[in-house]
Formats: sequence, structure tokens, C-alpha cells
Amino acid sequence: MTEQGTTADYPDDELDLDLRWWAAANYLTVGQIYLRDNALLRRPLAHADVKPRLLGHWGTSPGLSALYAQLNRLIRRTGTPCLYVAGPGHGGPALVAATYLEGTYSEVYPQVSRDEEGVHRLFRQFSTPGGVPSHVSVQTPGSIHEGGELGYALVHAAGAAFDSPDLMVACVVGDGEAETGPLSGSWKIPAFLDARRDGAVLPVLHLNGYKINSPPVWGRSSDEEISGYLTSQGWAPVFVSGDDPRAVFRELEAAVRTSHDRIREIQAAARGGAEDVRPGWPAIVLRTPKGWTGPAQVDGVQVEGTFRAHQVPLSGVQTDGAHLALLEEWLRSYSPETLFTADGALVPELAALAPAGGLRMGATPYANGGLRRTPLDLPALERYAVDVPAPGATFAQTTHPLGELLRDVYARTTTEDGGGTFRLFCPDETASNRLQSVFEVTDRCLQTEVLPTDDHLSPHGRVMEVLSEHLCQGWLEGYLLSGRHGVFATYEAFAMVSASMVIQHVKWLQHAATLPWRAPVSSLTILLTSTCWRNDHNGFSHQGPGLLDTVIPLSPQVVRVWLPPDANTLLSVAEHCLKSTDHVNLLIADKQPHLQYLTLEQAHAHAAAGASVWDWAGTEDDGEAEPDVVLAAAGDVPTMETLAAAELLREWAPAMRVRVVNVIDLMALLPHDDHPHGFPEQRFDELFTRDTDVVFAFHGYPRAVHQLLHGRPDPARFHVRGFEEQGTTTTPFDMVVLNRMSRYHLVIEALRRSRRAPERGAELVRFCRAQLDRHHGYVREHLEDMPEVRDWTWGAGRG
Amino acid sequence: MTEQGTTADYPDDELDLDLRWWAAANYLTVGQIYLRDNALLRRPLAHADVKPRLLGHWGTSPGLSALYAQLNRLIRRTGTPCLYVAGPGHGGPALVAATYLEGTYSEVYPQVSRDEEGVHRLFRQFSTPGGVPSHVSVQTPGSIHEGGELGYALVHAAGAAFDSPDLMVACVVGDGEAETGPLSGSWKIPAFLDARRDGAVLPVLHLNGYKINSPPVWGRSSDEEISGYLTSQGWAPVFVSGDDPRAVFRELEAAVRTSHDRIREIQAAARGGAEDVRPGWPAIVLRTPKGWTGPAQVDGVQVEGTFRAHQVPLSGVQTDGAHLALLEEWLRSYSPETLFTADGALVPELAALAPAGGLRMGATPYANGGLRRTPLDLPALERYAVDVPAPGATFAQTTHPLGELLRDVYARTTTEDGGGTFRLFCPDETASNRLQSVFEVTDRCLQTEVLPTDDHLSPHGRVMEVLSEHLCQGWLEGYLLSGRHGVFATYEAFAMVSASMVIQHVKWLQHAATLPWRAPVSSLTILLTSTCWRNDHNGFSHQGPGLLDTVIPLSPQVVRVWLPPDANTLLSVAEHCLKSTDHVNLLIADKQPHLQYLTLEQAHAHAAAGASVWDWAGTEDDGEAEPDVVLAAAGDVPTMETLAAAELLREWAPAMRVRVVNVIDLMALLPHDDHPHGFPEQRFDELFTRDTDVVFAFHGYPRAVHQLLHGRPDPARFHVRGFEEQGTTTTPFDMVVLNRMSRYHLVIEALRRSRRAPERGAELVRFCRAQLDRHHGYVREHLEDMPEVRDWTWGAGRG
Repeated sequence: MTEQGTTADYPDDELDLDLRWWAAANYLTVGQIYLRDNALLRRPLAHADVKPRLLGHWGTSPGLSALYAQLNRLIRRTGTPCLYVAGPGHGGPALVAATYLEGTYSEVYPQVSRDEEGVHRLFRQFSTPGGVPSHVSVQTPGSIHEGGELGYALVHAAGAAFDSPDLMVACVVGDGEAETGPLSGSWKIPAFLDARRDGAVLPVLHLNGYKINSPPVWGRSSDEEISGYLTSQGWAPVFVSGDDPRAVFRELEAAVRTSHDRIREIQAAARGGAEDVRPGWPAIVLRTPKGWTGPAQVDGVQVEGTFRAHQVPLSGVQTDGAHLALLEEWLRSYSPETLFTADGALVPELAALAPAGGLRMGATPYANGGLRRTPLDLPALERYAVDVPAPGATFAQTTHPLGELLRDVYARTTTEDGGGTFRLFCPDETASNRLQSVFEVTDRCLQTEVLPTDDHLSPHGRVMEVLSEHLCQGWLEGYLLSGRHGVFATYEAFAMVSASMVIQHVKWLQHAATLPWRAPVSSLTILLTSTCWRNDHNGFSHQGPGLLDTVIPLSPQVVRVWLPPDANTLLSVAEHCLKSTDHVNLLIADKQPHLQYLTLEQAHAHAAAGASVWDWAGTEDDGEAEPDVVLAAAGDVPTMETLAAAELLREWAPAMRVRVVNVIDLMALLPHDDHPHGFPEQRFDELFTRDTDVVFAFHGYPRAVHQLLHGRPDPARFHVRGFEEQGTTTTPFDMVVLNRMSRYHLVIEALRRSRRAPERGAELVRFCRAQLDRHHGYVREHLEDMPEVRDWTWGAGRG
Repeated sequence: MTEQGTTADYPDDELDLDLRWWAAANYLTVGQIYLRDNALLRRPLAHADVKPRLLGHWGTSPGLSALYAQLNRLIRRTGTPCLYVAGPGHGGPALVAATYLEGTYSEVYPQVSRDEEGVHRLFRQFSTPGGVPSHVSVQTPGSIHEGGELGYALVHAAGAAFDSPDLMVACVVGDGEAETGPLSGSWKIPAFLDARRDGAVLPVLHLNGYKINSPPVWGRSSDEEISGYLTSQGWAPVFVSGDDPRAVFRELEAAVRTSHDRIREIQAAARGGAEDVRPGWPAIVLRTPKGWTGPAQVDGVQVEGTFRAHQVPLSGVQTDGAHLALLEEWLRSYSPETLFTADGALVPELAALAPAGGLRMGATPYANGGLRRTPLDLPALERYAVDVPAPGATFAQTTHPLGELLRDVYARTTTEDGGGTFRLFCPDETASNRLQSVFEVTDRCLQTEVLPTDDHLSPHGRVMEVLSEHLCQGWLEGYLLSGRHGVFATYEAFAMVSASMVIQHVKWLQHAATLPWRAPVSSLTILLTSTCWRNDHNGFSHQGPGLLDTVIPLSPQVVRVWLPPDANTLLSVAEHCLKSTDHVNLLIADKQPHLQYLTLEQAHAHAAAGASVWDWAGTEDDGEAEPDVVLAAAGDVPTMETLAAAELLREWAPAMRVRVVNVIDLMALLPHDDHPHGFPEQRFDELFTRDTDVVFAFHGYPRAVHQLLHGRPDPARFHVRGFEEQGTTTTPFDMVVLNRMSRYHLVIEALRRSRRAPERGAELVRFCRAQLDRHHGYVREHLEDMPEVRDWTWGAGRG
């Protein structure tokens, strides 16, 4: 429990002003929820002044505004740049009110002016069709966090704080959100935050007793329990509680002030060279009533301090006179006539409480990261390129050169204070994913004493490894939205753990693009590796390409899916993704040794084209005739199997006209009207013709391709093979057999679909079936020394 | 720190036996990873004895086996039924070894016999194509948990403990898994576990210093910190640490024994009537070296106790003589010749350490829940049916009658001790989702003092509300896999939070069905409500039907998707789902007032059919002519818009032959070969003809339907409208307009696609466009009092 601040620290007149500012914020919050007219109560409230559709969440709002008032005071006093992350995103009207009061709202939305008409618009637009949503959203100035899907407040806050040495991120964690898995996991910030080069996160655990209906677990825990929980994870909690505004404001002021002082002390020590890896970062626990300052009782039932204050405490105001009277009493309790001038502007003494310019939390460039972003300093790719003497003749670990590129990106973007503008986030798999070259220039980050048995570990390392996809992705989102660059690399199957975060981030970017005042931020690039086809050693739980299916239906303005078949195409596509803004890029490439096909130059051309005919692999003559069949592939393993199939066809049926198409930009398959990358009809037809059957080997679930192809000419002629959810611990070749995508399956399908039946076709089918039988025989016998058919290279079979 | 047990508690000869049993388990673990021959080292080890493909995880295994040994001792002493949940699932070989030693493995897999040939098979099959996966998986007797995707050990453990008053679930939490969000969130078990009627969870936090590469956060935390963390959440931790097997076994024995005693004490007090809601449940923190008893150093580098022991500590054994010698030394350190008889059977004194029969953890019916399951006692549906005097004439909250049904299911399945066999799991939204009738017979569960402001809350309540989809779903999975019944009800959009858990559960059921010894368990039924179309008040973050797309590609043997259009169809389908086994059912129905169409009898017929022509809504004559166009719908809102469109067409173009088809079983659209519910071709053609254009209004993303339709005649004739990721806080009608699925859009599309152009078609298109223009006008003007077009009923327009 903090001691109450003294009047020397917080003179009464300043407290009075802050309380009046808070009254104004609360007034505007209630107004947004209830009023469509009579915004400043110039006349008695009538039923007709009330919105017909009452939406919004009052319960959490007063607490959010109280903290805003105190942070404003801190910023005025200290000039510390602060970012406000509102975990309880449904407290949207409180944040809209606060940014309106400080003037930033009207700067980005001039029609919501700082006068009575503006207040009127502010109220009318809230939770109204065509207006603003009820959540703290991308439309809210100063926000990097929506707070609709709960769980990510602290990870976003931490991401913004990394490499922002001056910044303090105040992050409100609602007692509901505190029950989620991701939020529970994200309290471990002190284990990853480097006081020397990172900014600070000041969590404010806001306990107000109830969620929608139930009491939350922390709301029914003692201060001692909460203190034990936070202390054990590296925090030094300060408790503030009460329902008397004056007393709570004094306590909260002291808590914010002393927390900030302590943060600066910790940072000064670290930046002076101290090595204290567990300094005990301040955290505030704020207990205030749900619906604080709202109606205490309605219809004889307690409302304030209960779950009934969660959304709209007075529900009958459109028709019930008593409810209407209560609403008017409630609104007038804030004395709006003393807060707003005759013109409806905030009175000058309250307007003066706003921090200066860009220090206003609604105007901070940390929340509009595009303003802070500089393009990533990328080296030329040539030095990382894999030597490809001939297509499909050599093996290389496809992700390894990318690791070398990222190593040099780290080197070029690291600043003198040990910070920088680029980070790699990965759940303890950087080396497993073959990106270990980054450790030549930086380390894994952990705030701990380093032991001799540790491997590239340091409190000042900047590769973020934590065994949580939620943390990795959330940190990166916060890092990007505050103006930096990064990559999230993960096992493909476990990318689904944070799939819902991907969806929410796409939604954010989709809406952000419609707001001219939001500057573009770096894209979220997710490298999916250790893919289903080559997670043969880990088995079925590690085999799942589902994130592809999750992103396909999302905004075409945002989503990109790349399936580079080899190392140089991965380099080319990665460069493109790292340069891009406002996208979510899925980059899918396995880490194991794979055949390499294209030189860097060819890779650039292939990636730019999105899909190409690989003439060298096909058997079309140069003439005008259409191919007999098209073999298409997207992804590394499908490409190899397709090429092996093409080679078998070339050997056995050289007169057959086989075209080989490789697809790297998956969204190119969508009709052009449905995605900006969708090929125009003519380009699509050039690749796939209008009527030739296509045998398509695909990295993911086969029907994902079918959904993309709707709208293309005769989509039924596409015969897709891919991952059919058949897997276990087995060999790579057995995986393609189990899922019917092996070269032999592709050959059989191609012969079945070919326009013309080649001479030795039946014989070739028998050969393929025999190969598959032989393989099944191996597996039945548990012969773990089964020969690996992957030891094949293009052209080797031609002898 | 627990005091070391005395020799009175744990006589030396018993300790010696347990240590020898442990040596046998470790020997079998190393053998599984390395050996393909010479299984019992009857001759010197040769390179040829070693597998060519070394897979598996040694690091965590000895700790898992040590705990198994101590739990066996506890079970022998006390007869307490125990379930072992191995969070570090990649410690699979340890659990396989333990269940082999106790005999259960050979009972379910007789070919892996208890002799030398059996040991040989045990080794050969591990991580081998066609053999057993490297993870603790569905194939492992005694497991309800795979542990590949980390995070769910404790939720599965808790789910099994609910309503299992005698059971103790020992749950090993790895230090890597402890970093995940879901696991971090799931330590709050003490807030939800009722000592009176539930069993106990005994977590064992296993710290061994490293994940794949990095040290874990808890591994670098002090005992004091860990104690603070656990204590604050209702646990009473006991610490065991060391690397001397004898000493650790003594400490661990004491920890397990005293924990069990304390659990029984807590339970006895609660069952005697005490109301202590925070008893402090025992938890063990076990610190042992990674790769304990493995090679200390390899090639001059420390291995034991470091990340290098994570998987295969000796990698060069196939060719490197020194490595091979180390492996032989390691294997022989366990003295296999003293553990196995000349026949290769475990020596009798060690075999005698196995608990009796069904108390062996590999044989416990709690881990093979189908053996314990009795069909759910469901009442007749008639009493819950909504009265439907005519189709589309009245509104009702579709989910409300389901709540009444679940209320009576609770009532019928509650046992005298306050437990039972059915639970509802929901993230604080039971009332919001209109299932509040359940509170007539039970309460929300929270271990807390109940306050006057609480709403249907009790420590003995059995509705599980926690604001975490991970916890809700994971608890239910554990509850089902241990033989009970339940439903997970959640906001549709946030079902994506636990989408990866759905995938993993489908994989589990898919493989379980191939194992004759696993008895069928109740299906996982997920009610998705508060759907995208009617989350208009919460906005874009709450609008996402993506779980549909996640499950479509998964095992057709397991996945079912139901889209009941109204309350009676929901009842019918829910009954079907609650009776079913081994499926994952998505049940999608909104909670708001919706039009009601079918009587219960009609609903049963419709649900059984999967899809039907709704003759009353169409304008086909009875003759032979094909319809001009088919209007199809799947989902409640799409059904309403489709019917309104049909009515407009009937009014304006009565001569047009319009067929209305309603689809309730989505998987029926898949070809019959691809899903057991897929309609045979003839049935599909009867509904949709072979060549008529179909305008399909769909609940989810439109291309989801297109992916299902591949393989049907002329799929390009299907024109699907659905959720196109357009949303915000707005009105229900604006949502269907934004996503181009409104009645007016459907009419325009139907007229465009109709085989014949009706007389007043152009006029009707103009009318529809005018209606849409008028709507857009409303929205542009922010008229929140915009009339709600949803206030329409079937036939009302006919006047």
C-alpha cells in the first residue's frame, strides 16, 4: 500500500483541477453512451434526447479516465513520453473522451470540433452505424491496441517498450483479461526487458470486482496474494484502492509519481553500467468500484460496484421517467456547466492540463509508428545467395541464408546504446529453424546471470526467444505498431496457437489503411518453417498447415502468402516483405536441406512474376499446341515431387507435352477482382490455359486451392494434392506417400488427366504403383533403414 | 523445501527397488532412442546395433520416470487412483517404458511382449515409420494428453479431476511449457476446484534448466519466487531438488506422500462440511538435471544438465567409436543384466512394483474415458420446443430453449455428492449467450466467499465460467476424455483463440478411432453463438466466423459442422451432438431473437436430412420443369435474408420458378467420398439440380462453400454470399448490406442468374437498388434511429 501523497507533492488546487478534468471525461463518456441530443444539457433531459440503441461499456471507463488524468499530470511534470495501452478496450468512450479533451481527437477528426457542435457529433457518432466503434480501436488516436479479443495488452505494451529507451508504456490490465492465458503468460516482461536500452512498462492491474457477470479470480484475491504473484515475476507492486475520488486520486498520483521515479532510477543505474537483472519494476494495482460515480442503485438494486454496471447501467431511459431522471441526475452530477464554456469548449483551465503537442498521449508518435518508422536498412542480397550451378542439382538448408541476411540486418540497425530497430522473435527455435547466424552479432535475451553452459545468452541480447507464440507475436505487433521492423519465425503447426492474433492484426491494418492520419507501419512477417512435410521427426501434433486457411479469407488488402521453393526465392521474397508496409505476410519455407533451383536473379524474376512456367522442367515443344497436362506446384516439397514426376514423364513418355508451373505468390490464384495480387485472366490463362487439366501439388490442405480458384475458367479441371491430415513420426518420403502427393501419385494423376494417352503410359502407371507398393512394404516391416527417395536430384535419373 | 523422508517412511530396501525400477525405465528409454538390435546388450554394442535415424527426447525423460516410480509407490500404499498427465509430451519414451514395465503396454499391444523379443520390438517401433510416435500420444496407454503443442497439461488435468472425487491427477509441467500463455493461465485451478466433489490435481513443475536452447524463465528463478507465484494462486508448494538419485528419490517420496496426505485431509474436511475455499493445494517443484544419469560430457563439452541433453546427447554413434563406447557405457550403467531375466522379462521383484490391475496408471479407466462413460441422460425435447404456428411468423431467442434443455440435463445428471457427469464451460457469457436457465439448478463455480452482489455464484456451482477460451475448452477436453459429457459455449469470433486446441483434439480423436482398445468418448461440442452477423454492438474485433475454415480440412471422420436456422433445429442437432461420440461438433447459432421456421417434428426431419427443399418458401410448380434459380442458405441470418429474397421474388415475379434450399449439415456439401456426411451425387442433384444456378447465402466466408463444392457437377454455378470481413459497430441489417448478403443483393443476384428473365425483373432490380441506396443514405447521415429491416416476418409482405 502506497502512502497517500502529501499536499506538497500534489497541491489541492491541482488535485481539484484533475478531478474536474475527470468529471469532464466521465461526462463525455456517459454522453457518448446515452445522448443523441441536448449534449451539454442546456435544457432538461427528454426521452427524445436519448439514443434508441444504447451500447457501450460504462463499468471500466471511470478508472481508465482517472489513470489518464494522472498520466497527463506526470507528463506535464516530467516530459516523459507515455503510451497508454487500454487492455479493457470496451472502455473505448473513456479514451475517446480523454483524447477529445486534450485536443488530439479534433486534430485528426476536424468535424468533431472543440465546441458544442463537436460534442454533439462526438456523442452521435459513438456506436452508431457509420460512426465509431465502441472499442478503443484503430480509429482512436493514441492507441496501438484494440482490446476486443482480450489477452494482448501487456505483450503489445512490451513490444512498444523494446528499444524505446525514453518511453513509458502505461498498460491497464482488466481483471477479466487477467484471466486469459496470453495475459497470464505475459507478466514475465521483467525477464526480457533490458533497463539499459529498453523503455519501461508500467502495468496497472485494474480490479473492479466483476466481469460480465462473474467476479474475476484476482478480484477475489487478497492484496497479499496479488503482491506475491507480481513480486515473483519481477514486479514491485503498489496498491491503490478506494471509492472516494479525492482519496483515490491522491493515492494514484503518488503511485504514478513514485513508480516513474523508480523506473528512472532503475534505468539510470543500468545505463550507468550496473548489472542488476531483477530490479523489481513498479506495477500498480488499482481497486475501484465498477461503474464508479455512476448510479448507485437502480430500481432498488445495487448497480455501482456490481456486474450490473458493466455495460449500460440504466436501460429504461427511452421510456421510463424514473430512469430518465436518474440519468439526468447522473449527468448533472459532473456539473457540465462548469466544465464547458458557453460555446461548448472545455474551459481553459482544464484545457491547459493537456501535455504539450506530441507528448499528449493521443498524439504520441509511438502510437502512430509509421511516423517514427524509417525504411529498414537492407544489405544487397548477392552475398547470401546460394550457388545454383543447375536447377535441382544441389541441396541446401533453405532458411540458413535468410539467417545470414537477418544477422547483417541486426548489425546494420543496432544503435550505439545497444538498441536498434529490428528484432527476431521466435519460440526458442532460432537455431532449430536454422537462423542461428544471427548469434554472430547478438544473443538471446534473458535477464539472468549468464552461466558457462548457456548458449549465446545475455541480458542485452536482442533475439527474443520465449516459449510462447502469443508472446512472440504480440511483442512483434507492439514493436511494429510503434515504428520498427521484425520477423516472427515459428514452427508452422504452432503458428495456429496465435492464429486469432493474426486475424485481429489483419483487422487492425485493414481499418488503419482507411485512416489518412495513420502512417504506414512495417508489415507483420511470419516465417512458417519446420513445416508439416518435414516435421517427420516430431509427428502428427507438429504437422498442420492451417494458418494458410485462416488468412485466406481475410482482407485482400492486407494478406499475402508466399511459398518460395528454395533459398534464393526465400531471400527475394523476404526482402520484399521486410520492405513492405501494412501487410501480413505468411512466408512458408522449410528449414531442412532441400533441392535448390533458381539463381538469385532467376529468383527475383520468379518472385516478381508470382508464378512462372519452368520451361527446363517441362516437355512442351515450342509450337502452338496446348500442353497435354499441366503440373503445378506451390511450396518446397511439392515442387520437388512435381519435378520428380515431370522427370519420370519425360523419361517414360517423352512425346507427352507436360508443362511445369511453379506458384510462389499464392494469392495470384484468386481472381484479380478479389485480390490485388490476383492474376488478370489473360495472365492466368497463359500459365494454366483455359481448359487443360492441371495436377497441382500444394503445400497445404488441397481444398484451400479450390477455394482460391472459384471464378477461374473451368476450376473443376484442377486436381489438387496436398496435406490431407495424414501424419505421424515417419520419413519425409512416407509423408508425401501418406498424403498421396508423392511423385508416383502425381504421375498417375497426370496420366489419368492427360489430353492424350502416351505410348508407355500404362507401363509407367504400373511402375509407379510398384514403387508405392514397395514403399508400403518397407513401412509395414518397420524398416527404419528404408532408403530415402528424397536423395534424388533433377536430371540424375536421365543417366 | 520438504524434509527428507525417514527410513521408517521409506525403508532402504524399498528405495533400492524403486531405484532399480527407475534404472529399468531409463534403460528402456535410451534403448528406444538408440537401438535397433542387441536390445538387452547380450553382446558388445556395435555400430550396426544403432538406429540409422536417431529421434527422441532424452532430456526430460528421467524426471518423468522418477515421478512415475514414486506414484506407483503411492498407489501401492494407498490404493488412490492416479492419472499421469505428462506435459513434456516429447518425453514419450519414458511413459512408454513405464507402462511397458507395469505390463499395460503389452496388454494393449500383445506383439510387444514381456520378453526379449518384446523389448526388441519396443525399441524398433519407436519413432519409426509405421511404429509409434515420439510423443506421449493417444497410442500411449494411460494418456489423455499428447504434449506436442505445449500449454494444456494443467487444463487437461483439471478437467479430468472435476467430478472425480477419488482421483488424483499428477501433472508434470515442463519449464518450457510453463512459459506458454495457456499454461500460465491454468495455474488458477484452486479457484475452481471444489474439494467436496472434485478430485485433486497435483502439479509437478519440473525444472531442468533448459528448453531446446535457452534457459526457461522459471529455471532461472529462485525457490522464493516460484513459491510466491504458486502460493499466490492457491498452491502450497513443496520443493525437491538435486542430482543424487538416492537423495532425490527420498525427497520426492516424501513430497508425494505428504502431498497426498494433505489432499486427503483437505478433501475429508470439505466433505465433512468445512467451507475453506482456499485450502492451499499441494504442488511439487522438482529440480533435476536435464538428461539426468546420461553422459556427463561428450567430446569435452558438458551435456548432462545443459540444453545439449534435450534430444539425443550422443549424435555420432553410428560411425564414431568413442560415441558408441559412451553409449554402451551409459546403457550398461543401468545394469540391464540385473533388471531383466534371461528371457528378457522384468525381474519379478521389479514387476511386483506395479500397482494392481486397473490402478496401474497405464490401465486407469480415467485415461480411457469411454470405459467409464454412460450415455447422457437426455430428456424428451418436446417440452423445450418453441411453438411455431407458421414458418417465419414469430421471433425467439434461438439459444434460450437449449439453455432449458441443459438445465434439465444438469438436473438429471447431478449426483448426491453434488458432482455429476455433465458440465457447461463458457467464458463468463452463459447469460449473455442466453443459456441462463441452467442457473435455476446450479451456479457459477468459484472458490470464494459469496457476496450479496454476486449472481448465481457458489463454490459448489458446476457451470464453469472463466474468461479464457483455453481454459474452458481444455477443461472440457479433460472432462470428456475421462468419460463425461459437456458443452463449450463461446462467442464465435473468440473461438479462434483456442482454434489450435480444436485441431489437436481432432488429431487425437482421429488416431484414437484406429485403436480398438480406446473406447469411444463423448464428442467435443462447441456452440458458437454471438455470431458475426449479430455482434453488431461489439464491432469488428467480435466478428469472425473463422473456426469454420479451421475445421473443414481436418479429419472427415471427426469433424461435423451444424448451422441450425432456428431454435427447434438447434434443439434437434444439440441432442444429436450430445449423444454422439468421437466427433468434434461445431454448432453455430446466434443468441438474438430470430425468426422461427420449423416445428420440432419438422426440425428433426430437416436435421436428419442435412438439407431440404423448403417448398413453402419457393415458387416451383409441381411439374417436371427445373427451377429457374435455386436460393440456398446455411445459417440463421442467411436463412432470413434468403426467405425475404424469395418473398420479394414471389411478389414481383410470381411466374419465376424459385427453389429454396436450406442446409443445416454443412459437410453434406462435400462429395460423399470425402466425408461420411457428404451427400451421394443423386441426393445432391435432387436439391441443387445438375445445372441450375444457385445463389447461396452462407453464414461464414463465401469461399469456404466453394472449397466444399469441388467435385460437384459444375461448381462454378454456385454464387455464394457470406461474411466478407466487413464489419463494425452497426445495425444487423447494415451488416448484411456491408457484406452484400442482404435480401436485396440476393434478389439482384438471383435475377442475374435466373434461367429465364421474369417480366418485372428490371423493375425489381431497380427497387432493390433503391432500397440499398436508401439504407446507405441512412448510414451516411449517422441516423442511429434507422428503421430495422429485420422487423420483417415471412408472409407479412404478401399483404
